[in-house]
Amino acid sequence: MEVKHEIRIRFQNRVETINCLDGSNLLDLLHQHGYSVYSPCGGKGRCGKCIVRVRGEAGSLTDPERRHLTRSQIEDGFRLACQVRASGTFEIDLSSADQLVILSEGTETPFKPDPRIRQRQIRLEQPSIDKQHDYWHRIRELGFKAATPRALQRLGTLAQKQDLVVTYSGSRILDIDELTSGTASRAAYGIAVDVGTTTVVLYLLDLTNGFQVGAHAFANPQSRYGADVITRIDYTLSRAGGAEDLKNSLLEALNQGVRELAGKNGLDPGRIYHAVFAGNTVMLHMLLGVNAASIANAPYVPIFTDGLEFSADELGLKIHPDGIVELLPCVSGYVGADIIADLLVADFESDSWRLLVDIGTNGEIILGNKERVFACSAAAGPAFEGANITFGMSGVPGAIAAYRIEDNGEVSWQTISSQEPRGICGSGLVDIIAALYSRGFVSPSGAFREDAPLEQYQGQRAYRVVPGKEIFLTQKDVREYQLAAGAIAAGIKVLIGEAGISEADIDRFYLAGGFGSYINPESASVLGLIPKSLLAKVVKLGNGAGAGARQYLLDRGAKARADELKQKITYVELSARKDFQKHFMEAMLFPE
Amino acid sequence: MEVKHEIRIRFQNRVETINCLDGSNLLDLLHQHGYSVYSPCGGKGRCGKCIVRVRGEAGSLTDPERRHLTRSQIEDGFRLACQVRASGTFEIDLSSADQLVILSEGTETPFKPDPRIRQRQIRLEQPSIDKQHDYWHRIRELGFKAATPRALQRLGTLAQKQDLVVTYSGSRILDIDELTSGTASRAAYGIAVDVGTTTVVLYLLDLTNGFQVGAHAFANPQSRYGADVITRIDYTLSRAGGAEDLKNSLLEALNQGVRELAGKNGLDPGRIYHAVFAGNTVMLHMLLGVNAASIANAPYVPIFTDGLEFSADELGLKIHPDGIVELLPCVSGYVGADIIADLLVADFESDSWRLLVDIGTNGEIILGNKERVFACSAAAGPAFEGANITFGMSGVPGAIAAYRIEDNGEVSWQTISSQEPRGICGSGLVDIIAALYSRGFVSPSGAFREDAPLEQYQGQRAYRVVPGKEIFLTQKDVREYQLAAGAIAAGIKVLIGEAGISEADIDRFYLAGGFGSYINPESASVLGLIPKSLLAKVVKLGNGAGAGARQYLLDRGAKARADELKQKITYVELSARKDFQKHFMEAMLFPE
Repeated sequence: MEVKHEIRIRFQNRVETINCLDGSNLLDLLHQHGYSVYSPCGGKGRCGKCIVRVRGEAGSLTDPERRHLTRSQIEDGFRLACQVRASGTFEIDLSSADQLVILSEGTETPFKPDPRIRQRQIRLEQPSIDKQHDYWHRIRELGFKAATPRALQRLGTLAQKQDLVVTYSGSRILDIDELTSGTASRAAYGIAVDVGTTTVVLYLLDLTNGFQVGAHAFANPQSRYGADVITRIDYTLSRAGGAEDLKNSLLEALNQGVRELAGKNGLDPGRIYHAVFAGNTVMLHMLLGVNAASIANAPYVPIFTDGLEFSADELGLKIHPDGIVELLPCVSGYVGADIIADLLVADFESDSWRLLVDIGTNGEIILGNKERVFACSAAAGPAFEGANITFGMSGVPGAIAAYRIEDNGEVSWQTISSQEPRGICGSGLVDIIAALYSRGFVSPSGAFREDAPLEQYQGQRAYRVVPGKEIFLTQKDVREYQLAAGAIAAGIKVLIGEAGISEADIDRFYLAGGFGSYINPESASVLGLIPKSLLAKVVKLGNGAGAGARQYLLDRGAKARADELKQKITYVELSARKDFQKHFMEAMLFPE
Repeated sequence: MEVKHEIRIRFQNRVETINCLDGSNLLDLLHQHGYSVYSPCGGKGRCGKCIVRVRGEAGSLTDPERRHLTRSQIEDGFRLACQVRASGTFEIDLSSADQLVILSEGTETPFKPDPRIRQRQIRLEQPSIDKQHDYWHRIRELGFKAATPRALQRLGTLAQKQDLVVTYSGSRILDIDELTSGTASRAAYGIAVDVGTTTVVLYLLDLTNGFQVGAHAFANPQSRYGADVITRIDYTLSRAGGAEDLKNSLLEALNQGVRELAGKNGLDPGRIYHAVFAGNTVMLHMLLGVNAASIANAPYVPIFTDGLEFSADELGLKIHPDGIVELLPCVSGYVGADIIADLLVADFESDSWRLLVDIGTNGEIILGNKERVFACSAAAGPAFEGANITFGMSGVPGAIAAYRIEDNGEVSWQTISSQEPRGICGSGLVDIIAALYSRGFVSPSGAFREDAPLEQYQGQRAYRVVPGKEIFLTQKDVREYQLAAGAIAAGIKVLIGEAGISEADIDRFYLAGGFGSYINPESASVLGLIPKSLLAKVVKLGNGAGAGARQYLLDRGAKARADELKQKITYVELSARKDFQKHFMEAMLFPE
């Protein structure tokens, strides 16, 4: 007789008990029972992300666990699920989601998927001369209420078959297949899309179990019409059909991305039935071909902010033509659906106050608790994305992302993908200026000091970042940083004032977005971008927009939560406020 | 001061009083106040259709009225609305809809349109720094709940305008226009389509006032795949993609018809927002590309019978892509949406029993009152459409549609469009056989008598229909008629038995369909196709399918009535019944 073990899974308020054979892999077991545990390396022990807390006989630690887990994690019973093999009865706890987010610096919390798109096996009773109801009537009797013309065509083709699988949303049937032994032809997939101004990321998920099948990133092809949203809006104003051009260029790239991602994973794009889009407000307007000019000028009012829903065919997205397309809601012209997605992943359902900052071209700032939420967008300018910085570049291979000056004056740096340094991205910029300020080479007002080790670059005093390389930081670059960081720091102060609280009331400071993932909080704190008192409360959220879109795809309840957040948020327009100007002047100075 | 008159309009249970200038045309006045009065000649006094009942000072009779109205109509106060000019106070009655149908042999009853597609003028408050709600939010505040991506694109383009016109259905916006002085660019039109196996008829209606703008008929191009539905179904079985071929051929012709009809009337097909389809069950399956094979074989079960709704884009119909497409519900495989459309126009909301017969390839028969409705389909074969008859042809120019043998033996005939006789259509066939039977040339069993004036045609005894012309009626033709008519007469008897009533309980006998419009009820009665006792109760409904589809388009309440009818109808499958066989044998004999 085979040895069997019992595993108890604690998740939210439930406990589920599953039985397994001796030696079963815990990560596989969790996936088989519908728990989505983030495991980007596929269970090979390489990524160290599938952290779970285990009590009981879970076997001894493996090398990958020793590499990825800290001593205190190990003491607290954390393990990598992919490394645990059932060798006795034990219990695992998936409830401490918060802790997982912090520990893994990842963005996924484990959950059982509850997607809108579902599949169900049905048996179609064949008609007789006494029971002449039509086939669709027989399906309606099972509780379905509507079907697309294509689903009816499929029904016409499959009418003689008895065992069918219907793919549906609510009570509406989108597709019908014959029940066959293989599952590949009748799986249901979804895509979550984070439409960034610069980069678009597509995530492909299996809706039947919530697993991420693959991901694909590509440069937003609208860049050819302008690097930033304002230039793109200008393009739509300068020619008839401009909004259509922008829509089409994005849509073509999306469709190609879907084809590639599906092809690489050996599946038909027609098996994708749901697409969820997060992105800033202008990107979502441009995705629909809606003129966004009103966002560019005061009073900066978008055409729409609601979450919207269409068919894939209506949008022109080449997944299943009757697939559902949803856009997450936005808050205002400059607080978009990407921020709502961040908030779906962060935890604002708390008594205490939380702060979230997502820095890109603008810095979106959210301050709230479960009762009240305030939002603003600080026009930081694209300094953190490398624009306006002499040797600035975005976070691509070769960008200096981390930088230190040792006590002995030696410098060290890290570049993205460890390539030869070619320039400076946002997190590198913060590190370099913080290092110069700490060494006393820059004054609190941001001016290079007379005694700083400077050279001349194109007629300006400049700091050579990498010895022997032509990569400089100029006085102007420091000024650009001060403008950008000052706007964000001032925005935080305005919201704190608006909420009537103090910094001490904030118990968590989420950093979201790519820049937020790379930034060194210590350096940001040295320069005042992160208030000193909040440094210990920093939580990196990673790509919250993508994670929130994935959650929207896998959890029917996410839409209600997003709509509730949108309703709850009080948008604070900074451009109209005197206190913002005052804080801005102060925040440009580095803390003494 | 101008002379003014008061006109009181009785309509259903309401009386509306309108004021008008002396000499105003009554038809124009009715149209201006939203009453749809059938007037295909456009008020020129040529068609004689716009019959209304008038009491009071309505001026003297005109020549067109003397031509079109019978003496008894004139005595009862009926007038042609286009000929009446206001010369005093008078009252008109639009309530006697039944009477109008009978009198005009038309299919329209006057009514105020209440379409699903509506237009509304809105004023868009411009945003300010204090009121930053997005534009769509401002429109939602007016009571709308959803908009298509295209409508949002339009909103983006028109955001700076203050006065807009929205075209909507329910609370969903389909289109947005700027309010301009002209109305052409922002009217809303609909099409009602009767998809016949042989002929497709498109009606174009102005949804803002209910007027019929034009109509267009074309041969169903699916004929190239087979003249009848069974041959077409065989085609779909014989090759992959066959159902798609049939769909595409019909859709292409529909789209061309829409283009032509819109073009002829100087309007953009994109201003058509609603399309309603009636037709037999197989045609509606083929319109959607749904395989109809299950209808061809016992137990004759269709894939769907429900009324369905899609977007124009989903179907591939080239009206406004977000336009609504609706299919009327069917009852069974051989009692289709065309019959439901007939019933919307006929009056079955009565205490007494009504009978409706719609003869085409099959004869659909409906017997009911406001409580119970029975339906069956008698497989009459296509004899009445000219098939299987030696010189048979459909009702096209040159077909003998009426025929008499005078007491002196002279024959007279009428052909369609008064062209040279080329063959015999269904109503001509009935007249010829009735004349031969009345003269004693044919026995009650349908055999040519020995003493009949017959010739030889292709080795058969045959009656030369037109002296000097090679148009014959053969013994086999009489047999074909007997089979077709016998099936219908037997179907009527089965339903009467099913309802547990007698012929005397029936107080109205509606004849629907093209053949029903042309048939001479006297002749049909001579041959027993129409029972003698019901002859005086015959009402010709004209093209009920087209009229019912138009009503569906113009009246939001029609869908609920159609669904109720579908629910109420008990379908009686004749092929399974012994009593049908018995009645059929008897009904093939002519009454003695």
